Amino acid sequence: MSIQETESVKEFGGFLKRYTHQSSSCNCEMTFSVYLPPLAETEKVPAVYWLSGLTCTDDNFRTKAGAQRYASELGIALIIPDTSPRGDDVPDEEDRYDLGKGAGFYVNATQEPWSKNYQMYDYVTKELVELAEQNFPIIPGVRSITGHSMGGHGALICAFKNAGMYQSVSAFAPICNPVNCAWGEGCFGAYLGDDKSIWNAYDATELVKNGAEKLPVLIDSGLDDEFLADQLYPQNLQAACDAADFPITLRMQDGYDHSYHFISTFIGEHLAFHEKQLRS
Amino acid sequence: MSIQETESVKEFGGFLKRYTHQSSSCNCEMTFSVYLPPLAETEKVPAVYWLSGLTCTDDNFRTKAGAQRYASELGIALIIPDTSPRGDDVPDEEDRYDLGKGAGFYVNATQEPWSKNYQMYDYVTKELVELAEQNFPIIPGVRSITGHSMGGHGALICAFKNAGMYQSVSAFAPICNPVNCAWGEGCFGAYLGDDKSIWNAYDATELVKNGAEKLPVLIDSGLDDEFLADQLYPQNLQAACDAADFPITLRMQDGYDHSYHFISTFIGEHLAFHEKQLRS
Repeated sequence: MSIQETESVKEFGGFLKRYTHQSSSCNCEMTFSVYLPPLAETEKVPAVYWLSGLTCTDDNFRTKAGAQRYASELGIALIIPDTSPRGDDVPDEEDRYDLGKGAGFYVNATQEPWSKNYQMYDYVTKELVELAEQNFPIIPGVRSITGHSMGGHGALICAFKNAGMYQSVSAFAPICNPVNCAWGEGCFGAYLGDDKSIWNAYDATELVKNGAEKLPVLIDSGLDDEFLADQLYPQNLQAACDAADFPITLRMQDGYDHSYHFISTFIGEHLAFHEKQLRS
Repeated sequence: MSIQETESVKEFGGFLKRYTHQSSSCNCEMTFSVYLPPLAETEKVPAVYWLSGLTCTDDNFRTKAGAQRYASELGIALIIPDTSPRGDDVPDEEDRYDLGKGAGFYVNATQEPWSKNYQMYDYVTKELVELAEQNFPIIPGVRSITGHSMGGHGALICAFKNAGMYQSVSAFAPICNPVNCAWGEGCFGAYLGDDKSIWNAYDATELVKNGAEKLPVLIDSGLDDEFLADQLYPQNLQAACDAADFPITLRMQDGYDHSYHFISTFIGEHLAFHEKQLRS
């Protein structure tokens, strides 16, 4: 699997890089970014995967979250994929921001016309991990995952569906129960069809109800988030975790919204949380 | 002078806000942003003014530099103006990124059609300062200034032209000798006319040659900056400062480019530098 470097920028003593490659999962060219801290010049480092939210590419996080400072200090790599397949040959709903390109929702689509390309779950949990561990100085198998909104959902399901694959998971304003919110229903219906029992396999709350393996979980969600009441449902995940005796840290942050200003405020604590697990 | 708040977002415990107002200097509606740290809720704080580079608005810095974290920790306010007058009635060169809107160059234009609106020097050093000190919990007269590229030039000339007005000045990849580079020649010619003796009053290197008052100066410039050789000329400013026995700290940073990734790497050190002067 070959990747092509398209950009390399020095930041906080390390390097922020961008790559393109032909994806076997998504059957199109994909782009991702990587931040390698200074420590990676002399030894292999742990990796934290970041999954972005609706409408984003790999660029939003690397530009706006301020994460590279902490990754540099903590000596961890950041792996930052796109949110969907891309290209002229990839199906889209051009009038919608919440379906198609920019809205892959980290599932493996089974329905036409999406199934050929919208295999973001396999892309993130298999192909990208193999690419990263083959091509960069990161420690194989020592990884955590985090993300925002749709990507917070993605991070949670990737961890809950793959026992032992990630040392920890965190999320910013995640969509915690997508089978019960409009964003999730719209995408799951299109990508997965009408059988809601299949949807549950990509829903963090339902996965916990069905016995997801316990691992360290940190979630921040803003109390002034405009999507909190109708789309995110952290209380449903908390209730499922309580019922399953699965301790998670869910912090409802007073005054914070859904933006990258919220993410930037807490990304340092999230990366420190992961680093502690990754080096324990 | 009334200002209208158009946005308020919580970040690092403080608030990032945006305002519009009718500018008496620029004869148009202007937009600026302010970050108020948590400390500003209980006492007045020092202010650091940030001047952005070509093509920017107030949004680039607040989104991409990662400065709010440090401002929150240090207890300083950030005041972030736009780079030029704006609006349908403001003259522009639509085919050029380096003249007209987004390229005010922090001078007071004397030439038609620019002179009515392009009064960015007065805007930044007088009108904005009065607005800020009237409307926000910042300590009157306790201020520093910094900026990037065209805005680094702006920061340096604002400090060098106004003895005692700023406690310190810093700059990222500043245009140090604009009368001798294409960007500066293009804008100064258009805004100020052909008399180059007038240009010198807005040139950091020339101001030092002509006896600018000494104050603490910190400059970072990247050795991989694509504009270093042809537009920035830090060596000219260093030579002028050496000849004037004006000690400055000029750091040429190995491997860094002209981007906000470079700014983000060093903005914390710059704000700490200013905070030390502002609270001494």
